[in-house]
This record gives sequence, structure tokens and C-alpha cells, in this order.
Amino acid sequence: MASPGAETKKPGNHNDFVQLCNPHVAAMKEDVLYHFSLSTSTHDFPTMFGDVKFVCVGGSPSRMKAFIKYMAVELGLDHPGAEYPDICEGTDRYAMFKVGPVLSVSHGMGIPSIAIMLHELIKLLYYARCSGVTLIRIGTSGGIGLEPGSVVITRQAVDGCFKQEFEQIVLGKRVVRNTHLDEWLVQELVQCSADLGEFPTVVGNTMCTLDFYEGQGRLDGALCSYAEKDKQEYLRAAYEAGVRNIEMESSVIAAMCNACGLRAAVVCVTLLNRLEGDQISSPHEVLAEYQQRPQRLVGHFIKKCLAAA
Amino acid sequence: MASPGAETKKPGNHNDFVQLCNPHVAAMKEDVLYHFSLSTSTHDFPTMFGDVKFVCVGGSPSRMKAFIKYMAVELGLDHPGAEYPDICEGTDRYAMFKVGPVLSVSHGMGIPSIAIMLHELIKLLYYARCSGVTLIRIGTSGGIGLEPGSVVITRQAVDGCFKQEFEQIVLGKRVVRNTHLDEWLVQELVQCSADLGEFPTVVGNTMCTLDFYEGQGRLDGALCSYAEKDKQEYLRAAYEAGVRNIEMESSVIAAMCNACGLRAAVVCVTLLNRLEGDQISSPHEVLAEYQQRPQRLVGHFIKKCLAAA
Repeated sequence: MASPGAETKKPGNHNDFVQLCNPHVAAMKEDVLYHFSLSTSTHDFPTMFGDVKFVCVGGSPSRMKAFIKYMAVELGLDHPGAEYPDICEGTDRYAMFKVGPVLSVSHGMGIPSIAIMLHELIKLLYYARCSGVTLIRIGTSGGIGLEPGSVVITRQAVDGCFKQEFEQIVLGKRVVRNTHLDEWLVQELVQCSADLGEFPTVVGNTMCTLDFYEGQGRLDGALCSYAEKDKQEYLRAAYEAGVRNIEMESSVIAAMCNACGLRAAVVCVTLLNRLEGDQISSPHEVLAEYQQRPQRLVGHFIKKCLAAA
Repeated sequence: MASPGAETKKPGNHNDFVQLCNPHVAAMKEDVLYHFSLSTSTHDFPTMFGDVKFVCVGGSPSRMKAFIKYMAVELGLDHPGAEYPDICEGTDRYAMFKVGPVLSVSHGMGIPSIAIMLHELIKLLYYARCSGVTLIRIGTSGGIGLEPGSVVITRQAVDGCFKQEFEQIVLGKRVVRNTHLDEWLVQELVQCSADLGEFPTVVGNTMCTLDFYEGQGRLDGALCSYAEKDKQEYLRAAYEAGVRNIEMESSVIAAMCNACGLRAAVVCVTLLNRLEGDQISSPHEVLAEYQQRPQRLVGHFIKKCLAAA
């Protein structure tokens, strides 16, 4: 059942241009996307990015580079000696890679870090006159009541009080934006996971927090002022509210993509079951395989979309 | 004049061990510092880090690598062919470098990103049995009413409503911590800048926001729902409240270091005057020189402390 206000339209409308919600930009002669080290006066955005239809984002630069290599192979665009240079090589704030219609961008950790990236990414797509763009976060998370390695497709992003909203302070005043995600896209991704049949996948709410330790009820940070019992009560209340995983970026993705006409989804693997512990101590190889699962799911989705186009 | 509650004690008390505010840690057999890719069971923290007295942190990995090379030269610890390997080479979340008593760590952008790093850093210093540690952020910021290139030493970190507090959601409830910084350290750093006489330096409040665009009153993001006049009113009100620069990490540094017995300071250069614009469009060489200013100031401070020890 779609949540109230969730977007359910199908894709493929190529008049669906990425839009800005900012009347001031029209008057700018040049726009320096400082954290990408790109500028409208030194780079030809329509030529570089005009064909982008899928933007995949994740925290780690090396993971996003691995993803673009994987997509090149999957789309038949790889060739011996192919290199995938970092488009943002002038900075180490973010890394960006492209193959065919797929752009892969790192966003660091936490809402502020991904928000900077999304502001500059949305402007980049706008200047490039991109249309019909889908943005998907392929990330990692802590699970609640799920086997480690399960993939969660986010239905609603909620805050640390389980409310479906994203709060910001703008000019000293509290502004609240909705965090609906696209229900049609959720269902398509569920179907893709069923097609693959490689790992357990669920649809659930995702709690988006501003902290990894106290903010997620962990007992193993440098600071902790509550007991195991309090933590368990909090995580069980989250489960009752439909939360199946916890990460640190989903709510601002939903809020900003809603406002600017990008269809968006959040697909995260769970690295542990938080009801059973706090530490991420599985062997490196196990974690590395888990981290490939959202990539494989989203790679399949992109191939399916392109085959149907 | 010291602000109420500000720490004014002098340094040099080597019984001043880094402490945790978490009774659960004592019962842990192993502690995996996941985002550093270090663990108490695979790394000997007292041997690796026991002599650390100064931790310098900044957003960019390459800037923090440049800082450790600079410090090696300044402390006479550099030699031909010296390399400064990334201690966190198993991950690309953070980068960490060490020379003598100086540790240099990147923290990415925003409160959540630096908070993860601080939790793991403070535990690392605790396991290493470090004492008398000073932590200094050497960063970049937007200035208010200052010449670009000015350095601001933070007296108080304030939020987007100019309040001197850091708010978190812990187990679904609002927790507020104070953001006092060490007044003795502020005055020592002021004296170091006077010793150098190389660039303008002021002491002021620093506004710490969760967003770089709307959260700092910029007109050039993908979203903006206010006018130039509203922005100017907000920035002028900030100036009236003693704010001289805006960045995205200072309040959580103050809150966490206060709690765990680390003397802390925030020293940021201003890349632009926000009363005159939003875009960071100075030439690369100019910005690169600005970014070295906090490094030179803090390098001088460290040398002075070591000479007096």
C-alpha cells in the first residue's frame, strides 16, 4: 500500500527535467560547484552529463569506483585497459565516475555531507539539462531484527523519534520537509531482488540519525549514559514503528529529491543485527560481499530499465 | 574575559588522562574501531599512539597529509625519503598520519562525520593511555565581516539560532551539551598568531550548521526560499551575536572534548566574506595559501609547547 502522498507515477517521461527550487540561480553568470571542483565556466555540463539517467550514490569513494567498473561490465561498456577517472579529481571532498547513462558519486557520512553533494549534484544535472533521472543510494546500515546481509529497500525515512520528517534550521527558523520515497520504484526494486534470488530483501522504514553511536543507541562509543535495557527498548520501539534499518543519509535524499523532481530510492545492506550487538566485527570478506548486494540489485534494475527503454 | 564555565587551567598536567564517559567499555574484550579499520585485538595502541600529545583534525585527507609533512619538517623529524603512511589504510572513511607527538586525522564534512571520528579517536587515545592531549581543528569556513584569509580562533561554538549549545537525539529524547572551549588555549593561540605576524587573526564565536547552503543562508544552492534581504538580516544578526565565521564541526568538538578531558580549540581560515557573496571563487593558489594559515599557526603553537616542556 502506498503511503499517503507517496509518488507512484511510472518513469520514462523524458520531459521530466531536473529542476531547481531557487529563483536566484537564473541570475548567476557563473556557478562554481566548489566541493566538486567543477564550474559552469570551465566545464561543458550538457556534453559531460546530458545523457545521465541514473545517479548512484554511496558513502565510500572506493566503493563508488568499484560500482562504476561493475556497471561498465554489466552494460557491455568495459574494454581492456579501460580507466574510470575521477571527474572530481581537483578535490578530495567527493569522487565521481561515469559510464554511459550511469553516474556514481561518493557522499561521505551523514546528512550534512550528503546534503552538500546533493545541492551541487542537482545543480549539475540541471545545467546539463538532464531529464527522467533516478537517484539511488546504495549503502550500508545497521539492521533491526534482520539477518546480517539482508537488503532493506526504504519505504519511508524517519528521524530518531520515528517521525517521517526532515528538520532543518534555515535563517534561524525550523523548517520541516517530507521524506516520502517513490513507491513505484520501491516495487520495481523488490521485483528485481526476486528476479535475482541471491539474498533476502525486505521493504521497511529506515531511521536516519545524526550520530552513529549515542544517536543509534550504541553502547560502545566514547560516551554513553544509558543501559542495555534502555537501548533494547528503544530499538524494539523502532521495530514496532516499522523501522528495519538505521543509517545516516536517507531523509535528506528523500526531502531534496522530492523538491527537485528526481525519483529516488534508498537500498542498504545491513551489516549486523542491532538487537544482538553494536560492533561491526564480521570478517572483511563477509562485509565486502554484503556491500556488493545493493550494487548487484541496482545494477539489475538499471539493466532492466535500459532494456525496456 | 573568560566565558562562564570556560576552562582556564594551564596544560602540562601529565596525569590528565583521556577518559571515556561510558561504563560499558570496561566489559568489552575487543573493540573494533570500524571507521578507522583498527582494533584493540590486532593493533597495539599504547605502542602506536602512547606518546601523542597533539591531535590536529581537518576535513580533507590530503590537507591532513600535507600537515603531517609540514610538522615533520618543523619538528626536525623529516628526512630524505621519509614517508607518512595512512594509519587507516584499510578504509577510505578517514585518513590518519603521525609524526612524533602529533597525530593528524581527517574528519570529512559535517557534525555526524566528525562525531564518528571523535568517538573512535577518543577511544583510541584512551586505550593508548594518552595524557595531557590537546585537540585542534584546523579548518576552513565562511567569514562574516572579515577580509578573506582572516583566521578565526573560536571562543564559543553556537548553533544556527546563535545559542551556545549542541543538541542531539539520544534514544528518541533531546539531549543538550555545552560547547565551551578552552579560554587558556584561545589566548595562547592569539599570542602565537601575534608572534608570527603573518595574517589577520581574530577571536570570535563560530556558528556551526548542519547544512552549507540553506543552513548558512546561501542563495546559490539547489533550493532557496528566501531573498537577499533576508539573508543579509540573518548574517548581520549573527555578527551582532559575536559570530565571525560559519563552519560545520565546531560544536560537537567542544561538546565531546569537554566530556572526555581533552583540551580543544577550533582555528579556521575564512575563504570569503559572506556579507559580500556566497560562492568560493578565488583562484586555487589563493585558497591553497589561505588553507595553510591555520596549519602555520598551530604548528607554531606545537613547537612552542614542546620547547617549554
